[in-house]
Amino acid sequence: MKTPQKKDSLELHEKLKGKLQVKAKPGAKLSGKNLPLLYTPGVSFPCTEIAKRREKVFSLTGKQNSIAVITDGTAVLGLGKIGAEASLPVMEGKALLFSELAGINAFPLVLDTRSPQETVQAIKAIAPSFGGINLEDIASPYCFYIEEKLQGLGIPVVHDDQHATAIVALAGLINAFNLADKEFRDAKIVLSGCGAAGTAIAKLLHSSKKFTPRQMLVFDKFGSVRKGKKMPEHMREVAALTGSKFHGSMKEALHGADAFIGVSAPNLLSAANIKKMVEKPVVFAMANPVPEISFESAKRGGAFIVGTGRSDYPNQINNVLVFPGMFRGLLDAHAKRLSEVAKLATAKALASSLQPSPEKILPGALDSGYVKKIARSVKKASRRTGKFSKRCFF
Amino acid sequence: MKTPQKKDSLELHEKLKGKLQVKAKPGAKLSGKNLPLLYTPGVSFPCTEIAKRREKVFSLTGKQNSIAVITDGTAVLGLGKIGAEASLPVMEGKALLFSELAGINAFPLVLDTRSPQETVQAIKAIAPSFGGINLEDIASPYCFYIEEKLQGLGIPVVHDDQHATAIVALAGLINAFNLADKEFRDAKIVLSGCGAAGTAIAKLLHSSKKFTPRQMLVFDKFGSVRKGKKMPEHMREVAALTGSKFHGSMKEALHGADAFIGVSAPNLLSAANIKKMVEKPVVFAMANPVPEISFESAKRGGAFIVGTGRSDYPNQINNVLVFPGMFRGLLDAHAKRLSEVAKLATAKALASSLQPSPEKILPGALDSGYVKKIARSVKKASRRTGKFSKRCFF
Repeated sequence: MKTPQKKDSLELHEKLKGKLQVKAKPGAKLSGKNLPLLYTPGVSFPCTEIAKRREKVFSLTGKQNSIAVITDGTAVLGLGKIGAEASLPVMEGKALLFSELAGINAFPLVLDTRSPQETVQAIKAIAPSFGGINLEDIASPYCFYIEEKLQGLGIPVVHDDQHATAIVALAGLINAFNLADKEFRDAKIVLSGCGAAGTAIAKLLHSSKKFTPRQMLVFDKFGSVRKGKKMPEHMREVAALTGSKFHGSMKEALHGADAFIGVSAPNLLSAANIKKMVEKPVVFAMANPVPEISFESAKRGGAFIVGTGRSDYPNQINNVLVFPGMFRGLLDAHAKRLSEVAKLATAKALASSLQPSPEKILPGALDSGYVKKIARSVKKASRRTGKFSKRCFF
Repeated sequence: MKTPQKKDSLELHEKLKGKLQVKAKPGAKLSGKNLPLLYTPGVSFPCTEIAKRREKVFSLTGKQNSIAVITDGTAVLGLGKIGAEASLPVMEGKALLFSELAGINAFPLVLDTRSPQETVQAIKAIAPSFGGINLEDIASPYCFYIEEKLQGLGIPVVHDDQHATAIVALAGLINAFNLADKEFRDAKIVLSGCGAAGTAIAKLLHSSKKFTPRQMLVFDKFGSVRKGKKMPEHMREVAALTGSKFHGSMKEALHGADAFIGVSAPNLLSAANIKKMVEKPVVFAMANPVPEISFESAKRGGAFIVGTGRSDYPNQINNVLVFPGMFRGLLDAHAKRLSEVAKLATAKALASSLQPSPEKILPGALDSGYVKKIARSVKKASRRTGKFSKRCFF
């Protein structure tokens, strides 16, 4: 696929003036007959019903199929802290994907807040309208605090850059390891980046025995993430999970590694580094738009499977494959949060949605079938682990 | 029109499960070609443009045609403080009207906040996504504080129950006085109710010499609103406007009055009270669902024109006639607030949108033409009084 041009993108945005429209559902088109039912005075009846039994809001309003796509504008794409208004095109794009791929009424909300506390307060305030909250592009480490503080809302609150990215990486790894005939429990994995995505990947890989690698070494720009080192809390958690005491460099760590996963910074590795890995190495260089190592260099280094975040190379590891189907399943189950079981179910469903080959380990975003497959698995998994209950409301 | 039945309303709400859908605009339907323009990586271009010049958000996103329909659930319909979730059916209904009548992307937001300060903070936080804020069903006197605190946002913030209600009442009065051959400057008007709507009506009638009555007496449940009496601030403002020192009862005040406007409580007046008014009296008994005096009693008392809030009698004085067209005009003008000039322009445009008769002084909500007429007038009036400027943002 061609790299998009600035001119084309600006022209299209200028022409559209917004990607979304809010419209009447077909059955709610106004008429003389339904106006007094859908508005005053008849609308008072559903209000009274919900005032009496608050969970009726799920059957009498659009809450059950509405989510907010929210950012505070602190870590937007690779652009950093560009503020609320400048984040709106991305949030509209994300909401568009929810709508087009999963039939969810997603509304973009960009927040003008000055602290993680204010962000939490604003999201708590608007939550009653929604069946779920999708957080986006919020800077690490505040994203961990914000997500955690919102877990009691009674609706799923998911930080895409953590969970959807971790899930799509796991799905890709499942298929890559299958193709390379590798087992997670025997594998050595090197992970570059310990922000929102890296932390979530490390945690997800440790949440199921089946997918926990034999050895996992995590690095950020200051070197290895290891026990006993002075680091932010989320990194200390990762060190505790991996148990790593490795003091060497990331390049040293690649000796004998089965897989490299990068969610960090451009141009960190060369073909020579990949040559030090074991047979059939798997390289996911997901830094965007410039990966940790180019597709060509990784291949030259002998990589068996290479994935990047880019749409112009094979194997785009894109979290868009995860969030529409996963939220569809969460909403359908009236899940009150995103559980570890549901995350693993998403990764497995996504991985099994195609016959993988080294040049296509995951479906394309617009391929058919995978969204529904994920939704069904997540609905099942979420029903097992905690249906929406009265308790959440009061 | 038939009074709507509980069963019909609940069945329809149950079937619809929400009145609105968020969908791709026709030009934004996903394809392999536009996906990388509307989402990563191409979406970074409009983001960067807006980060450089924030007012570009109006030409590159949906902000310019999006409004939030917001309540804190403290004064919903006649039901009082029923909370956020229970208010959602009404806000959805309101958003539906914005969409269906004026093509505005209106999204319902019901707030779980515990104080007017929290409500202000939440609305400030979410404002960057929207070109306007429509406040609804917020209890008096907090609605005054909330609306005032939000006037600096750079987008119009309108409290429907104040301004739209005042405007529709003025539009109705213009046509009623024309039909009865009365002049505002010679008229005596009795106003029952000094909450959100009553206060706004009193203020609007005093904002233009042309529509200021010779005498205006305002009452709340504790008697006359007059200078020197101990009252909340908004009522002291009304007393200062009217200059009233009248100590008598509302029924006494009706002696020789030209018009009665009620936005207060059911069954306050009888036919005998109307008989004390001057020739061709105008009675707007807008308490909902049970008016200050029934249509039949007012007619029996000799009222020349009777309006109520009800759809099952002639002359429904309904603020739905105001808000879609008025917001359309405000958005089209990129107005930064709702000015007095724009309010008066709305009332005049609405009044002149039909050939009135005593049984039809205002159009029906689904009549054609009046929304566009209002929008054009408001756009013109708003352009005169303050276009959206850079200054608002910074």
